[in-house]
Amino acid sequence: MAKDMRVALLLDFYGDLLTEKQKDSLEFYYNDDLSLGEIAANLGISRQGVRDNIKRAEAILLEMEDKLKLAEKFSEIRQRLLSVRTAVDVIDRKNMRVYRSDEINESIKTILAELDRLDKLNE
Amino acid sequence: MAKDMRVALLLDFYGDLLTEKQKDSLEFYYNDDLSLGEIAANLGISRQGVRDNIKRAEAILLEMEDKLKLAEKFSEIRQRLLSVRTAVDVIDRKNMRVYRSDEINESIKTILAELDRLDKLNE
Repeated sequence: MAKDMRVALLLDFYGDLLTEKQKDSLEFYYNDDLSLGEIAANLGISRQGVRDNIKRAEAILLEMEDKLKLAEKFSEIRQRLLSVRTAVDVIDRKNMRVYRSDEINESIKTILAELDRLDKLNE
Repeated sequence: MAKDMRVALLLDFYGDLLTEKQKDSLEFYYNDDLSLGEIAANLGISRQGVRDNIKRAEAILLEMEDKLKLAEKFSEIRQRLLSVRTAVDVIDRKNMRVYRSDEINESIKTILAELDRLDKLNE
């Protein structure tokens, strides 16, 4: 059974839509790298049951991303926020070195604090 | 049947998870303010069918938001981006009035362009 590494990422976004057993199976398989047999023992279900859970859960996650594109959107948000942060750093260095404006410094602090909170939302 | 105005917003986020008839029913009801009878005539189904579609679709949207909190997250993103924009405007005015740095001006332009693109993602 081939691992699809998109699944580990999609689990963060859509994991709450899965049943407990589906979610556990995927986490053991993708995040903890357990074998089907180990997962079966952990969950007290058959090896085939684990395989079915994983197949079904993977299909749900991929279908959700196909429809909602949440991982794609958040990846773009993350890249654009990084670009904002780089541009803010340029202003910050210039201000520190040359103008030493408190007003600009305060605004930069506000922006960086908001960017930190946005990054947290994006995790 | 009471209208729940959160539904109109959630339709933007999760509408693609509904069946065509469910989505059409909600859009006619919430966005176009048609009566159940008018929607029934438009879709060629019974008035009771329309009512069932709406009830079922509303439940799906509310359940999805309860689990994924997408509308809530994007609302917070929107507010934080607005706060970033306000702080960037302060730097922009100060720079225009006092320092006239091309380097700062270029960085501000980059930030504003990224904010515009982020706003579009958020629509």
